[in-house]
Formats: sequence, C-alpha cells, structure tokens
Amino acid sequence: MKLLSLEGLRNLLDTLGQEVFYRAVLEALERDFKRWGDFIKTPRLATHYPFGVIELMPCADRQFYTCKYVNGHPGNTAQGKLCVVAIGILADVDSGYPLLISEMTLLTAIRTAAVTALAAQHLARRDSRHLAIIGTGAQSEFQVTMVQRVRDLQSVSYFDPDPRAMDKFARNLAFSGLALLPCRSIQEAVADADMVITATAAKQANDLLQLDWLKSGVHIHAMGGDCPGKTELGLALLRASKIVVEYRPQSLAEGEVQNLDETAVHAELWQLLTGELAGRENATEITLFDAVGFALEDFSMIKLLYDFSQQSAYQHFFDDIAMLPEMADPKDLYGCFMPGRKAH
Amino acid sequence: MKLLSLEGLRNLLDTLGQEVFYRAVLEALERDFKRWGDFIKTPRLATHYPFGVIELMPCADRQFYTCKYVNGHPGNTAQGKLCVVAIGILADVDSGYPLLISEMTLLTAIRTAAVTALAAQHLARRDSRHLAIIGTGAQSEFQVTMVQRVRDLQSVSYFDPDPRAMDKFARNLAFSGLALLPCRSIQEAVADADMVITATAAKQANDLLQLDWLKSGVHIHAMGGDCPGKTELGLALLRASKIVVEYRPQSLAEGEVQNLDETAVHAELWQLLTGELAGRENATEITLFDAVGFALEDFSMIKLLYDFSQQSAYQHFFDDIAMLPEMADPKDLYGCFMPGRKAH
Repeated sequence: MKLLSLEGLRNLLDTLGQEVFYRAVLEALERDFKRWGDFIKTPRLATHYPFGVIELMPCADRQFYTCKYVNGHPGNTAQGKLCVVAIGILADVDSGYPLLISEMTLLTAIRTAAVTALAAQHLARRDSRHLAIIGTGAQSEFQVTMVQRVRDLQSVSYFDPDPRAMDKFARNLAFSGLALLPCRSIQEAVADADMVITATAAKQANDLLQLDWLKSGVHIHAMGGDCPGKTELGLALLRASKIVVEYRPQSLAEGEVQNLDETAVHAELWQLLTGELAGRENATEITLFDAVGFALEDFSMIKLLYDFSQQSAYQHFFDDIAMLPEMADPKDLYGCFMPGRKAH
Repeated sequence: MKLLSLEGLRNLLDTLGQEVFYRAVLEALERDFKRWGDFIKTPRLATHYPFGVIELMPCADRQFYTCKYVNGHPGNTAQGKLCVVAIGILADVDSGYPLLISEMTLLTAIRTAAVTALAAQHLARRDSRHLAIIGTGAQSEFQVTMVQRVRDLQSVSYFDPDPRAMDKFARNLAFSGLALLPCRSIQEAVADADMVITATAAKQANDLLQLDWLKSGVHIHAMGGDCPGKTELGLALLRASKIVVEYRPQSLAEGEVQNLDETAVHAELWQLLTGELAGRENATEITLFDAVGFALEDFSMIKLLYDFSQQSAYQHFFDDIAMLPEMADPKDLYGCFMPGRKAH
C-alpha cells in the first residue's frame, strides 16, 4: 500500500512543475466529468458541530473507490490552523483492498480551483479580462492561477476584511503577470469584473453581491455556500442568473440554491462538458456556478496521483506502508498475527 | 500525525501481551457502550457491488471523530486475500485535524470478538462450558479466545465445509486449554452447545440452525448477517429467541432481524451493559445476539490505540507522517506549498 505525504506531493509538484500538473488535473477532471454515468454518486456524509463540520466524500466507478475525509472549521485560522484539511483513500473495487492513502489538503485546493476553471470555460465570456475575488484566504491564489489557464486575464481586483490576507494574496501573485487591484469594498472590487469569485467562509446566510453592482454578462463563481444555512448570495441575484451546479441533490441541500427548488438549476457541470446542455449563450446573461465541491472531483485527483505512483519515474515520491496483511492462508489471520498462540 | 502500521500493531501486541491488550479492549468497549448517549451515531454508508461491499463507518463524540474504511468480499479467499480488510482514522473534533491513521484489519477482528464476549457476559448462561462455532474462517479463533475471558469454557465443537479451515482452527487453538471437537455437520456441532457462534460469509439468505437441534437455554451469537439480503438464521428460530442488537436502525436494515419489525428486538447491547434492561433472565430461554458490527466499536479501538500513541512507553510503535500543512500563516497555503510562484 502506498502513502503520499504532503512532502511527497510537494516534491512531485517541484519535479513536474506547476504548469504540467495543472494541465493533468484539468484533463483528469474533464475526462471524469464527461463519463458522469459511470460513477456511483452519493451526497457527502456530514457530521455537524456548532463550530464546524467533518465530512466523508465517497465516490466510485467499476474499478476504483475513493473517499475523502475533510473538515470545515472557519474558526481555525484564529488558532493558526487551516479551515480545511483533508486525507484521501483509494481502493481497488474488485478486492476491496486500499491501494493509496494521500494528503488531500493541497489537492483539494487545486481541484477546487480546477473546477472553477472548467466551469469558467463554459460560463465566462471568452473575452473576460478582469477577475474579481472576494475573500483572499487559503484558496484564493489557486483560483486565480487556474482561471488564468482558461481565460486571458489582465487584471484582478480583490477584497478581504483582513488586510494581511490581501497583502499575502498580492505577494503570492506578484509574478502572475496580472495587474493587482486591491479594493476597499466588495462593491468596488466587482464594479468592473467580467468574472467574480466569492470565497468567504462565514457560517451564515450572507448577501455579498447586489445585482446593480455587477456588469452585464458577468460570470459568478460562488464557492462559499457549502453547508445547510451557509450561503453567500441573495435571492434576487440567484433569480437573475443562469445557475449551474456540480451534483443537484447535494447542491440543493448545501449550495446557494438551497433556498430555491430544482427548477432553478439550469444544468449540472458535466452536461456542459459533454455538450448536452449549453453554457453561456450570449454576452449579456449573468451566469452563476454554485460550487460546493463534489466527491467525483476528489476521485479524479486521488486516481491521478495513484496513476503517478504506478509510473517508475514518479513512484519514489510515494512511501510504502505495511497496512494490510499478506498471508499464505487468507483464513489464518489469527495464526499469522496474534502473539502467544503457541506454548513455546 | 501518527500512523499505526500492521507491523507497529503487531509489535505493540507482542510487548503488551495478548492478555493485557484483550483486557484493555474489553474495558474500552464497555466504557464507551455505557456512555451511548454521548455519541453521534450514523448507520454505515455502504457501496454495494455484485461481488462485495465497501463501507464507511463514522462515529464521534464531543472530542473525537473516527471513521473506518472496510470492505466485505466473500470471494477474496479464493484469490488468496482476506474477505475483510480495514483502515481507520481518528480526528480531533475541535480543529477537525486528523491525528491517527491506523491499520484496522486485525483491530476489527479483535473488537468483533470483544463484542461477542460483552454480549455473552449478559446473555450466555454463567455455567456455559461448551461452545460451538459454525464457520472457522479468519474470525473464528478470535471469537473463541475472547469468549474464554468471560465464561469458563471447557470444550469447543466446530464445523466448516472447508476441512483445511477446520485444521487451521485446531492448530491455532492447540494450546487454548479447550477440548477441540471437530464435527461433520452443523447439527452435530451444536447438539451439546451452551453457546453457538455462527460466522459464515455467504452472501444470501441462509437457515443454518434448526430450533430442535438446540439445547434449551442456549445463547446464539449470529455474526454472518450483515448486509441487506444476507442472513444466517430462519424466522422460526428468531421468533423463539430474545434478540439483542448493537444499534437498531442499522440491525433492522442489515442484521438477522431485517425480516422482522422493531418489536422483535428486546434491547440494544448498551442497555444490558448499563443495566437499563435485563439480559438473560432464566436458564431456559434462548438468547440471540444479532451482531452486524457498529461504528462505535471501531471508535473505541482507534481511540484506545490513540491513547497508546500518547504514552511514552508505546509511542515508538507509531510512525510520524507529514500529511498536514504546518504554516506560520494559515491563510498562506499557496505561498507555502506551490512551486514556481516566485520569479527567482
């Protein structure tokens, strides 16, 4: 059985380069979303606490089963911890044997950003040049760099109530080739935007964006609504938008659309990728991708990393761990492993 | 973050000794079952395939969250693999950070046997001397050695359609102090038994035990019924028995009682342990524990092992793994881990 530590992943990324890895991620996600019908899909299993949530996100096809453990604790930052950390597991369906345990904190940030790019490819205007991002926390730079891969961005305006988080954002994107435009309010940040990403973490119903602040033809990627009761956008904006989600049953429970009914959802993302349904159809409509994060995306990531572990050029980034019994007689678990069974 | 490999567990068991570890397990399980109300309980999340099942078993209290990944593939034995393997994770509820990943294959076998002993303590006659076991697969010896801790067994009769599995059973229990009585049929094996354990793995509805084969006052521990459609016992026997389960919602879906309604269940195990409800009340009634395995049991095991990892005498059996980011600024995931963000 293989283990991919954070250190192993970091070294793998250093070797591959960010560009190559991002391409591989986008391709893996697109490939898997396009074969949507192959997957056994389950809304995630959440355990809610007053201060956070712990979730299990399983997904499987006929060959592989994956599950991600992930938390969401908005108060963690004040304790010097990440709001979201994650661990993934991949198993062989035929035997049920696990094959890989992987760090998923960094991989979750990357796949979340990659989904943003895939959605933007079908929903943001082709001539989108100016991105606004509301909330410059741990996820923000991943979002920007991934959207750069699908749209020719020139500038990014940004706002966060924490000025240090805005400074960090600017520092990390200093060499991105983008004009960086710090703003003093959400309204200022979104005024000129062709695309808006909302990435806040407050655990409550919010109303971040007023319809009349936005340009015609804007694409909104809302990723902070991901729990029952936790939304970022008001009903007026939702009703004015063409809404796309990842997986209806989960989004209707957890996403921005939780206060609407099923008819409010135009499509699931995979339907845009396969061409079954249209994405953006003109330059003036407002499009909204209501991102909550879906287990299929984690499947793609863990499977991608598992594929690397099977290639001789990359296998040394993975550790071998002895977690599963290997026995001549599979019925002799006791004889193989229990101490003191013999008198001598 | 800590990792307990199979090798680490084996070495820990060698150091502690089987006796000490079994005691600790029984105490941990009894302690946790007695504080039943403290736990957030969820029926397990199963993904079914024609040839097996993959399950997630989460459980949590206010301090710790655990989840077990476990499979059930009856056909694995023919491929030289175990039918059941498992991996566990324990996390801190306050932060959502995982603290331990543990092998759970051996630990599942041990906890399953320990639950058998706890149930027998309240349901088997105190003067039970003769145990019968139907099915001598990977789980069987664990069952016998654990029941020995709560009842003064003298002999064990056993039957399995695979004669090599019967030989293995005899070999592993050669120094158990028990008279070992191989039988040619189930009927022969159970004829004299004070307690019967059924531990078969066939994925179908079975009818292993006829009521008139059994002695008055027998205690039956049925552990092979654990999936919808997979049962070991017929309705006549169930209707003649006082039935105790682990967790009603899960047992009514998966256990022997899946073909009966809720009123057929006398009690949940925790109610016997706290004394809220009576176990065996006379020497003649037939008692039946319908064991399907419940996530609380895995919680107890992972937590017990986590406690060992926190003691200086035992911490060296656990590996340190770098799975979680440690950062000066928890909002700077990108800056800490992404390659190529700087021009130099």
